[in-house]
Amino acid sequence: MQIHLHQTHHTIADFTAIRQTLQTALDRPGLHVFPELYLTGYPLADLCLQSPFIHSYQKFLKEIDAWAQKLPKSSETVALLGGLAYQLGDEGIPVSIRNVIYELTPGAPLRPLYTKRLLPNYDIFDEQKYFTPGTTPGVWEWQGKRFALMICEDMWASSFHQLDPALDLAKIGPFAAVINLSASPFEVTKNEARIARARTLSQLLKAPFYYVNRVGGEDEILFDGQSFAVNGDKLFGQAPAFAAHTLSLPLASATEYAPIGSTICENTWESLFAPRFSSEKALPRRLQTWSDAECALVARALQFSLQEYASKNGFKKFLVALSGGMDSALVLTLAKLSLAPGQELEAVYMPGSFSSPLSWDLSMEICQKLGLKLTSLPIKFLHSNIRMAFQNTFPQPFEGLTDENVQSRLRGMLLYTRSNQTGAMVINTSNKSELAVGYSTQYGDSVGALSLLGDLYKTEVYRLAEWINQAHGGLIPKGIITRPPSAELRENQKDQDSLPAYERLDAMLEGILSYRFHARDLTTMGFEASEVKRVFQLYAKAEYKRRQFCPIVKIKAKSFGFGYRVPLSKHPGFYQD
Amino acid sequence: MQIHLHQTHHTIADFTAIRQTLQTALDRPGLHVFPELYLTGYPLADLCLQSPFIHSYQKFLKEIDAWAQKLPKSSETVALLGGLAYQLGDEGIPVSIRNVIYELTPGAPLRPLYTKRLLPNYDIFDEQKYFTPGTTPGVWEWQGKRFALMICEDMWASSFHQLDPALDLAKIGPFAAVINLSASPFEVTKNEARIARARTLSQLLKAPFYYVNRVGGEDEILFDGQSFAVNGDKLFGQAPAFAAHTLSLPLASATEYAPIGSTICENTWESLFAPRFSSEKALPRRLQTWSDAECALVARALQFSLQEYASKNGFKKFLVALSGGMDSALVLTLAKLSLAPGQELEAVYMPGSFSSPLSWDLSMEICQKLGLKLTSLPIKFLHSNIRMAFQNTFPQPFEGLTDENVQSRLRGMLLYTRSNQTGAMVINTSNKSELAVGYSTQYGDSVGALSLLGDLYKTEVYRLAEWINQAHGGLIPKGIITRPPSAELRENQKDQDSLPAYERLDAMLEGILSYRFHARDLTTMGFEASEVKRVFQLYAKAEYKRRQFCPIVKIKAKSFGFGYRVPLSKHPGFYQD
Repeated sequence: MQIHLHQTHHTIADFTAIRQTLQTALDRPGLHVFPELYLTGYPLADLCLQSPFIHSYQKFLKEIDAWAQKLPKSSETVALLGGLAYQLGDEGIPVSIRNVIYELTPGAPLRPLYTKRLLPNYDIFDEQKYFTPGTTPGVWEWQGKRFALMICEDMWASSFHQLDPALDLAKIGPFAAVINLSASPFEVTKNEARIARARTLSQLLKAPFYYVNRVGGEDEILFDGQSFAVNGDKLFGQAPAFAAHTLSLPLASATEYAPIGSTICENTWESLFAPRFSSEKALPRRLQTWSDAECALVARALQFSLQEYASKNGFKKFLVALSGGMDSALVLTLAKLSLAPGQELEAVYMPGSFSSPLSWDLSMEICQKLGLKLTSLPIKFLHSNIRMAFQNTFPQPFEGLTDENVQSRLRGMLLYTRSNQTGAMVINTSNKSELAVGYSTQYGDSVGALSLLGDLYKTEVYRLAEWINQAHGGLIPKGIITRPPSAELRENQKDQDSLPAYERLDAMLEGILSYRFHARDLTTMGFEASEVKRVFQLYAKAEYKRRQFCPIVKIKAKSFGFGYRVPLSKHPGFYQD
Repeated sequence: MQIHLHQTHHTIADFTAIRQTLQTALDRPGLHVFPELYLTGYPLADLCLQSPFIHSYQKFLKEIDAWAQKLPKSSETVALLGGLAYQLGDEGIPVSIRNVIYELTPGAPLRPLYTKRLLPNYDIFDEQKYFTPGTTPGVWEWQGKRFALMICEDMWASSFHQLDPALDLAKIGPFAAVINLSASPFEVTKNEARIARARTLSQLLKAPFYYVNRVGGEDEILFDGQSFAVNGDKLFGQAPAFAAHTLSLPLASATEYAPIGSTICENTWESLFAPRFSSEKALPRRLQTWSDAECALVARALQFSLQEYASKNGFKKFLVALSGGMDSALVLTLAKLSLAPGQELEAVYMPGSFSSPLSWDLSMEICQKLGLKLTSLPIKFLHSNIRMAFQNTFPQPFEGLTDENVQSRLRGMLLYTRSNQTGAMVINTSNKSELAVGYSTQYGDSVGALSLLGDLYKTEVYRLAEWINQAHGGLIPKGIITRPPSAELRENQKDQDSLPAYERLDAMLEGILSYRFHARDLTTMGFEASEVKRVFQLYAKAEYKRRQFCPIVKIKAKSFGFGYRVPLSKHPGFYQD
């Protein structure tokens, strides 16, 4: 028996393309497995409650059903498809929505087999808002064999929900195989975590474990594919990351399985999110440095996310504002490396009164290396005009933040004016360290359709740049990497004048964001109390900037963006406690 | 027995103020009732998972407990306090968080009595993300009497969750009274809905029903107070809206109660949100017009929200950009009416090439009526400078949207430059109709700390203006109300050139947003198919603008903002189906 894991790549609700892929795939005999919510796309959020969507989807489902019934009967071919099952009441009003696996047998009606039991509801996940959970384990028979079925999160037992679908299945076994249909968001180290977990479940359920994951970039959230199969400890197939692919494998025979107790089925993903914390308090004072393989994966993820947003939102041109600094240089390089035929990438440089000649030289240098033209659009004249107008109109002095922010906002405005002219997508260049401490100007350098680096700390931006230079022959000028970071909004300004050194800052931020440390945790780890206090102050004060920020490509468990929900209006005293 | 309903008003996590209010209140004998999550504030979102918050709150809870235990023992006084109950595991990691009622008896330890059972998880609510539900009905005895306890949503049975706490209580009765501790977000018509529901539950449980609701503005969400008590059909007490207040009432005796079956306990709030729609398809082709009382309530709500955001985020000055049109005039008037002593309100007018002299005259007129100075800050010169710079730099023509948007963005930039100078809070002036169809410029007129009118359709903006003129002696010039709406970004531009008449547009939008109609529903109601198609197109295309929009004061069941979650990247075909 052949098992085909179809790691598919479609736009949400692109029913025509979804049908075509399905119809093409079923030309071959075997057991075809498609990802979670293959038939709709994921995540849908409120779309699954909107009548236009329900209407179209129900029509589509009927078409698939009619098509399947007309196929010549065959016992050699079957497909497992992730989809939604609506129970509709009066006037098409949904009474319940279930996240299910449909069985498609040629010559037979489409049949829902199994309903997802463990509905993730932490961080970016809101599945309990929309879906009704299943109550019975997923067991399915085909060609005289029994299979255990799971949908995504089902493989991660939840102590919070006191539900462990794998343990329930273990009581029902044996199985010929375990099949998991996933739509699992990308994180840098998630592939290893999935495989490790699958190994455990393969041992527990004493059967090979087949895992298929969707591919796609949905605003902030990436799905990386990387479908795989394990048998006991052995990984015997893995599909590539960020590309549609069909992984065809034989049904593996039972092998030696290590004995596994029930204790291993502990909650994993939720440990960082739902009402539990990671218990790991041994955060190193420096962040762990990404390996070359991790850098390659991150670079691939960021390029993929850019192309996904562009193609799904109708952009063929990209626009980046270069400052002569590290962040914009990296964004430009990633964008250039991602370009498809027919796409255009434009770089503009908008010097102000405090821009050093070096910034221009370095911007020119990177554009030459990348084969891009650089256009200069100075803001000096506009800046001094505004200063004069304000000095003539208002009694208050035009200085400090007023004078700094206006330069950043002029750049944002010019960038979007250029975007209006060409229809180009503006790529944001902020990083996670800046977002965390509010080291940016609202409506200034914070503008953009998508933030590529918003989940990378500044030290990680440097690490990725270093790797790119290694892998792509020094595209990013050394001068950009070695110069001290500066916003160049006042004379001789340096980031390190107002922020702790990035190495320390990033480690503290990771402690605050991912480990949810409080002030004393950080001082216990050896950070200066005054520095800790300042970082918490900056972090708390910047909430309003994050609220209006553009979508951030998520590459980690805890990111700013949709899954980060902190009120603006609050008494900030507790942050210092 | 006296029952004191304390409709309190505090900033989230302002533990000092929360303690003071409690200590002052307990001077009097009787049964003191405080709102849901009184001890923390609501909504907390991710704060309740953050270690600094947990740490401070646990310390605070211990202090309250120690204080209560030291009080002279008394059987005449007791308090019911909403709060969080953490179950903490290793290293302070929460295993579960419950939304509970604490009993505070002088001379005794603080004691959790009841855990909220029905955790709302639709629209703006995410309680299942954070809290573990209770499993038993709320029954409590004091002074030899039995009371039924509920927390907010418990009074609204959920068919989605198949849970009806009131029916469970009905099986356990009789009770001397029903007590509900709430943190119930404001909507224009919600007070009547709450009272109607309380009447039903009073009949069902054959006891008077006491309801206490918190007061506060939390970014987008308002809590209106309006605590009340009903006995059978009779309303025998109601506290004011949007102000801290203690409503002291006797324990009412049993009266005649109408017989109530179980059928009445149908889901209500969720009907618009969770996997159910409102079944009401009889939307009038015009929106219902607000009554004078509703206008007064909306005006109060908007003024309150502004003051709340300002005081909780440290603003004493406000800044509004006047255009000579309706939206900015209404915002300015509301802001002026809300001003507290020591606060300042500034109006600026930023004329461009297409601003008519009438716009200046009308802006001057409203400022004179409101006793405000108006400062003019022309954008013409900057605009033509940018046009020239682009014409000298880029081959593409500088026209159409490019030329229109740059004016709006220049205004946004100047407004924030002024805000930087004075520390004023910029109030956004967009309305819900504009937000729905994307009739605004990103980073231009869409900027602001808070949107006052983002949940009011354009026709509602006019209705509110009309009411304000009635109630406050014609503050808003007639000329502003009667002139045709225009963005004045090109020659002779009128909103109605590119949009359907607002009366029709607003009715269609309400159908799409609140009733979740699809295209055919709207054409069946008599709207032109081509107009419906166009509105769906505009609505779908504007998602990216809404994503980066500022917090919107929520005054309706379905608003843009936090509770509205629609992916940007999707195939839009289904909207036309």
